[in-house]
Amino acid sequence: MSKEKPWAGRFKEKTARSVEEFTVSVEFDSRLAYWDILGSKVHARMLARQGIISEEDAQKIIEGLEKIWREIESGRFRWRSELEDVHMNIEAALIELIGPAGARLHTARSRNDQVATDVRLYLRDEIDDLCRRLQGLQQALVDKAEENIQVIMPGFTHLQHAQPILFAHHLMAYFEMFQRDRERLADCRRRLNYCPLGSAALAGTGFPVDRHFVARELGFTAPCANSLDAVSDRDFIIEFLGAAALIMMHLSRLSEELILWMSSEFAFVDLPDAYCTGSSIMPQKKNPDVPELIRGKSGRVFGHLLSLLTTMKALPLAYNRDMQEDKEPLFDTVDTVKTAVAIMGEIVAHLKPRPERMREVCEEGFLTATDLADYLVEKGLAFREAHAVAGRVVAYALERGRRLWELSLEELRRFSELIDEDLLERLSIEGSVARRNSFGGTAPERVKEAIASARTRLSQDET
Amino acid sequence: MSKEKPWAGRFKEKTARSVEEFTVSVEFDSRLAYWDILGSKVHARMLARQGIISEEDAQKIIEGLEKIWREIESGRFRWRSELEDVHMNIEAALIELIGPAGARLHTARSRNDQVATDVRLYLRDEIDDLCRRLQGLQQALVDKAEENIQVIMPGFTHLQHAQPILFAHHLMAYFEMFQRDRERLADCRRRLNYCPLGSAALAGTGFPVDRHFVARELGFTAPCANSLDAVSDRDFIIEFLGAAALIMMHLSRLSEELILWMSSEFAFVDLPDAYCTGSSIMPQKKNPDVPELIRGKSGRVFGHLLSLLTTMKALPLAYNRDMQEDKEPLFDTVDTVKTAVAIMGEIVAHLKPRPERMREVCEEGFLTATDLADYLVEKGLAFREAHAVAGRVVAYALERGRRLWELSLEELRRFSELIDEDLLERLSIEGSVARRNSFGGTAPERVKEAIASARTRLSQDET
Amino acid sequence: MSKEKPWAGRFKEKTARSVEEFTVSVEFDSRLAYWDILGSKVHARMLARQGIISEEDAQKIIEGLEKIWREIESGRFRWRSELEDVHMNIEAALIELIGPAGARLHTARSRNDQVATDVRLYLRDEIDDLCRRLQGLQQALVDKAEENIQVIMPGFTHLQHAQPILFAHHLMAYFEMFQRDRERLADCRRRLNYCPLGSAALAGTGFPVDRHFVARELGFTAPCANSLDAVSDRDFIIEFLGAAALIMMHLSRLSEELILWMSSEFAFVDLPDAYCTGSSIMPQKKNPDVPELIRGKSGRVFGHLLSLLTTMKALPLAYNRDMQEDKEPLFDTVDTVKTAVAIMGEIVAHLKPRPERMREVCEEGFLTATDLADYLVEKGLAFREAHAVAGRVVAYALERGRRLWELSLEELRRFSELIDEDLLERLSIEGSVARRNSFGGTAPERVKEAIASARTRLSQDET
Amino acid sequence: MSKEKPWAGRFKEKTARSVEEFTVSVEFDSRLAYWDILGSKVHARMLARQGIISEEDAQKIIEGLEKIWREIESGRFRWRSELEDVHMNIEAALIELIGPAGARLHTARSRNDQVATDVRLYLRDEIDDLCRRLQGLQQALVDKAEENIQVIMPGFTHLQHAQPILFAHHLMAYFEMFQRDRERLADCRRRLNYCPLGSAALAGTGFPVDRHFVARELGFTAPCANSLDAVSDRDFIIEFLGAAALIMMHLSRLSEELILWMSSEFAFVDLPDAYCTGSSIMPQKKNPDVPELIRGKSGRVFGHLLSLLTTMKALPLAYNRDMQEDKEPLFDTVDTVKTAVAIMGEIVAHLKPRPERMREVCEEGFLTATDLADYLVEKGLAFREAHAVAGRVVAYALERGRRLWELSLEELRRFSELIDEDLLERLSIEGSVARRNSFGGTAPERVKEAIASARTRLSQDET
Repeated sequence: MSKEKPWAGRFKEKTARSVEEFTVSVEFDSRLAYWDILGSKVHARMLARQGIISEEDAQKIIEGLEKIWREIESGRFRWRSELEDVHMNIEAALIELIGPAGARLHTARSRNDQVATDVRLYLRDEIDDLCRRLQGLQQALVDKAEENIQVIMPGFTHLQHAQPILFAHHLMAYFEMFQRDRERLADCRRRLNYCPLGSAALAGTGFPVDRHFVARELGFTAPCANSLDAVSDRDFIIEFLGAAALIMMHLSRLSEELILWMSSEFAFVDLPDAYCTGSSIMPQKKNPDVPELIRGKSGRVFGHLLSLLTTMKALPLAYNRDMQEDKEPLFDTVDTVKTAVAIMGEIVAHLKPRPERMREVCEEGFLTATDLADYLVEKGLAFREAHAVAGRVVAYALERGRRLWELSLEELRRFSELIDEDLLERLSIEGSVARRNSFGGTAPERVKEAIASARTRLSQDET
Repeated sequence: MSKEKPWAGRFKEKTARSVEEFTVSVEFDSRLAYWDILGSKVHARMLARQGIISEEDAQKIIEGLEKIWREIESGRFRWRSELEDVHMNIEAALIELIGPAGARLHTARSRNDQVATDVRLYLRDEIDDLCRRLQGLQQALVDKAEENIQVIMPGFTHLQHAQPILFAHHLMAYFEMFQRDRERLADCRRRLNYCPLGSAALAGTGFPVDRHFVARELGFTAPCANSLDAVSDRDFIIEFLGAAALIMMHLSRLSEELILWMSSEFAFVDLPDAYCTGSSIMPQKKNPDVPELIRGKSGRVFGHLLSLLTTMKALPLAYNRDMQEDKEPLFDTVDTVKTAVAIMGEIVAHLKPRPERMREVCEEGFLTATDLADYLVEKGLAFREAHAVAGRVVAYALERGRRLWELSLEELRRFSELIDEDLLERLSIEGSVARRNSFGGTAPERVKEAIASARTRLSQDET
Repeated sequence: MSKEKPWAGRFKEKTARSVEEFTVSVEFDSRLAYWDILGSKVHARMLARQGIISEEDAQKIIEGLEKIWREIESGRFRWRSELEDVHMNIEAALIELIGPAGARLHTARSRNDQVATDVRLYLRDEIDDLCRRLQGLQQALVDKAEENIQVIMPGFTHLQHAQPILFAHHLMAYFEMFQRDRERLADCRRRLNYCPLGSAALAGTGFPVDRHFVARELGFTAPCANSLDAVSDRDFIIEFLGAAALIMMHLSRLSEELILWMSSEFAFVDLPDAYCTGSSIMPQKKNPDVPELIRGKSGRVFGHLLSLLTTMKALPLAYNRDMQEDKEPLFDTVDTVKTAVAIMGEIVAHLKPRPERMREVCEEGFLTATDLADYLVEKGLAFREAHAVAGRVVAYALERGRRLWELSLEELRRFSELIDEDLLERLSIEGSVARRNSFGGTAPERVKEAIASARTRLSQDET
Repeated sequence: MSKEKPWAGRFKEKTARSVEEFTVSVEFDSRLAYWDILGSKVHARMLARQGIISEEDAQKIIEGLEKIWREIESGRFRWRSELEDVHMNIEAALIELIGPAGARLHTARSRNDQVATDVRLYLRDEIDDLCRRLQGLQQALVDKAEENIQVIMPGFTHLQHAQPILFAHHLMAYFEMFQRDRERLADCRRRLNYCPLGSAALAGTGFPVDRHFVARELGFTAPCANSLDAVSDRDFIIEFLGAAALIMMHLSRLSEELILWMSSEFAFVDLPDAYCTGSSIMPQKKNPDVPELIRGKSGRVFGHLLSLLTTMKALPLAYNRDMQEDKEPLFDTVDTVKTAVAIMGEIVAHLKPRPERMREVCEEGFLTATDLADYLVEKGLAFREAHAVAGRVVAYALERGRRLWELSLEELRRFSELIDEDLLERLSIEGSVARRNSFGGTAPERVKEAIASARTRLSQDET
């Protein structure tokens, strides 16, 4: 094959230069080369097995493709933008290298099923990589939780102090989020693992191909069941982008908390200098740039998700060129999420909580007011009344600038006769945490169980 | 409880009217009443079982709630916006109805775990309903495909004629899409099916609750494992919105095709008058408003998905009031997708393909040019060369305004010596379709297999 | 006109019930009634003026429409969903009321140009209202700034203390944002202010209408220049949604700051009880629900923007039914933004800064380290070197747990010989603020100028 | 300055390698080099003018910067990723080149105001370029319209034939859209044209800078009025992205129509081979890849808009590192929109309408049914009744497979006594078009006026 377009036969004019530049994709889809070659090798083997091409040709093709891969891997391959995309570049190089046999490779397939196969193979590998990184982050969370099992912090709702909790319990909430993220990725992987090859342009092929052989050899569950759907479907990318958007959402929440906690107002945690950056003008600054950037990058991934949904909206079957726009959002999302997850793992691993500061803050507020209400319930008051009494006690203490435990028994009994000396221990931070021992609660025994169970889950997933 | 806010104890000023209006949610969250009551009844039973409240109180609560439900169901219940939300309305009505016992219901729970439970219960039911509707649509597609198994239409890529295909094969591509949609919904349902109740505000509760009992009774797989996560998590809504966005994307593609096919230029299908509307100014118009609206509504659902992702971005743990914004996009998405799926099922069922027109169009173009190329490959030409020869034949015929099969053997042989009389049958529309009999291809035997397999899948899912 | 569809003539079947329900819009577009009637009245006057209908008929129409408006305004009008939309409801009521003359109103127009006109009239009024509310919010900001002109707070970058600034300067940053928002709305208003009426369905009309008269009477700049564009164009809604998204983004930033500032860690401001809400379980809570909800609602408006962009994507000219989906996102955005702006104005007006706490925090950090660097520059050091020296001084002080001004001259001079006694006054909070007196800077004299200029701008815009 | 970070003084550990890689931006922000240097040169001149640095230093700085620019322009400049961003790379190179004087350049500014200035300067130039390209596209539309002033096509609503219109009138609808786009860009340009320089990190500077001089010299209207706002504001990027999204939406509509029109079912237009591409498997294909890609890229730009809105949501003042995420969506949008507009201009210029085919299609349908209704109105029937009569005539003709003008006068008069012989000329395609001569309508005289007015507007904007 010369540098001519593969479809030049029917055309009388050369493609306009501006069109060539506008439609070229090799700058970004060359990233698919490894999987393109992988798929082509299996395709060639199948063609020979089915007698569609000769064994000899197949052998030449496979050796040629392997040679080309070594060139690509070592950076010696010359990508030519006039050949449009990764598929045409590799095929042209193959024909140059091994002659006519190379021109037989594209038998019984089309770029439509080829690119769909490439992207699925690529994404399957990237999902596996991302899952490993998520496991790493979860590992860091579990380790940090266990290491700091005794640290108590104020639990927040509405960014207001609510009830004291274990710092470890807070970290383990993120463990759960990332666990769901991995499950979503696993579902997405399972669903994408069907092989489009053999669907040809849209209608299937008349050559006696063996689609099940190809699917099996490439590790797919089965061939795609409908040839039109196989080449028109980008669900798996959108589903992945959706899962990625959720990961970024979770990371943005953790980032927000790290940024808050590193402010001098909170001062709940510290990060080593190696994980912060400074200011070009203010010498004292130590900025949490990494969580800020992660938080900021959530927008990027949300945007990519919307981008592909919009692109696919209202496209008639089967392939349309619009669908070339699937790759850049996918690639950028893969890169962004993988990096963000990995670096968040490092951040968590290097995080230093400041237990005294957290404790100090716990004691300032009224974090055990719920315990007062609960106490009254146990003494027989209906919950709603107990809640109202506790509210009045808080208002009284606030006005006088005192904490709950600084009120005398006498003062307290003015609000309810049910209050007795045994209340006082109930208002302690430790007591409050230890009491919340319902399943999934913040009591140390519960959190230790959660950590143990998390370790089991992580080790099971690894095997 | 009076009409006072449940948290009035600590406050010295009344809530500003504008704030009350701004924060009220009962206008939309009253939709959750059924599930709120369902959860409350099980909660009350558990409280009694664990000795936290008396059996008698529990009985009163349950009967009271059932009475309230009957009032709501019959439209006699008076929703009060000054009571903020569905939970407070029902609780206030309960206290009014049964007195102090009602004030004990909220023991060991918070609105944070309550609303999270309600929404999961609600969405679980709605997913089941939506899946049934998707099955109905799939059924309509399979029926229509089987009914028209002999109809041939031009297959398109780039909205250009590509190769002839069965109309049934085209419909079955959508069957596959909606099958994946149902699987995604099933995954989402499985993942959401954990019970937040007992997480209380964020930290768990000190009352000796039995979260496993509650989870089991409400049909959940298990209680949520981390109390902070349980009240902060809206993943399941976002995952559902993502699945819904994909459904709408699929519907938008089918709608686009219906609109195209109903244009007088295509004229591939007809729809009964009952499924079209007319014009207020142009008496001859018969407009495909329904597919247009479905297509348009894809934007709505994409917007809701992005809306909630944005809302959740960077929220610190645990509950924040921002999260109240989860309900309207969810409710509107549920309504939109359920209606769109159902009405598309009706449309498909009433669709009348116009086989003669489709056939006429198939014969106009060069839809079997690939068959010419394939023929040459079988005769020994390498695919790339065969493709080029076929391209030149097309260019030749185009210039002379003739179709492929109108070229004489002599003319054809000028392009390649390999061409013989046996080519001519290869260029027929039927021959072309029948030849594409690779797995998943458009050949009638393949499509019949696909229809049979689809029927099996549908009947299995029903049980 | 009976209850029959206006286009029933050509149809042989009744519209399916499901289709009727799916396509009906009167539930939400009845909001346009006022503007629909306004437009119809001018249209009727024009028809009579041009001799297309009789003066007598026009008079009847106008009186009929005014009667209908009074019914609608008073809630007595019966909207019928089988009549689809606001236009058909009003027209049907008119015909019922005044007989045949009513059937002449729709001469020389179509629902396509009618609805486009209605929405423009509606949005023009709503933009004016929104601008007034933005002015109110800006007024509150200016008043609060002036009232607290002496309050110093830490300025942040990366949520880390950067340099001391005036609280008033911080508030005035928001003044600027809302000023741009108003300008964007004004541009949008100017651009939408062209009249589609007379474009009819898409091609213009053959009746001798006077489009300039209609445009003038309705306060439009001119009629739309191209009839196809006039009925296909929804740019003005999208542009408005874009401007609204920016307003919500600004409000989300201010909300975030209010939430931070109300946390007990920051404790920079207080809000009266009337502007907060409490907790159903934690009696001590005082939650900033209003800013939280505003922040959360940014997602809603971003979603609406994307929703309509997606809906309009790739629609062929001219009108398509998809475009009916423009109204709900628009109406909900108008309601959301108007309410959010108004309530934020109340919040700002009731905000109580806590100057001692802010000052305390200013003194804890190294907010004047830049002043040290600047001092060294003035003494002749290159900026980059000065910055490095200041950085080393901060590191030294941090290690010893001391503040900058607690270092002795001797200690300071170890870092640079250029340091002299005159440095010490430079390191004070007040000195630092006062020195930043470049145009737009935080020095009190600059901020006072900014406040004065803001007042002038506000009063000019009012006239 | 060595390769050390500018803020290394206060830090004791080296930045982690992963952090360096994660935060680096020079790979994409090096695109700002030209404007960074432009701004730095004026800043240096101002510093000297105000006596903050010496004239000699300023001279060295300016010459150094110019030398660096020549290196960058010629591709010889070595960008170092360890120096983070474009600003630090250029400053480091300057110090290397001219020594200590270079270290004085950053006096009285920060990267925060510097990057804000760079992006505004960059975007201002790109907006000008984009406007020129839009003018080119508008020019092509006007030329094509004038060239084909006699061509009649069916006008569509709901993709159904509505009324006959001029092809030129259809093209001119797009002229109007792009005219609004240019106006939006002009508004955006005007609003962004304020200079942040001199705001320093966030609070202004204590050095006696002249912000008005800098603003004037850089062609800005004035300095930004509030230093915090100046460094926190990304409105201008979002406003631009919003304007760009609208441009892409318009292009997607035109693309959709071109794709439809190039289908063999429509066959309304042809495009030269040079503007199409072929298929790797189907030799006969001639695909409209360019409009397809443009249509697909609308998703990309919508995604970028959402991306930045999300990133900016809820960021506290002033600068946060999240804001670094503004650049890639902006740069990619600028590239995408500029290219899409330019290539659409070429497409329009090369478009060949097929008048006979369009006419044929006009005659097939009932495009003049509205003219029948209008005729009856002129004869005295109320519009609603006239519409109903015309509808019945259409239904009658449809059933008999005849066109309107194939009905005999006798047949017609069965539907209304008002019909007379003069109706027949009213039902002709030409007559119908010519009659729609209201302002903005499709009558040839109106369209010619529109073309003339468009030419005037284009020539005025050029000057």
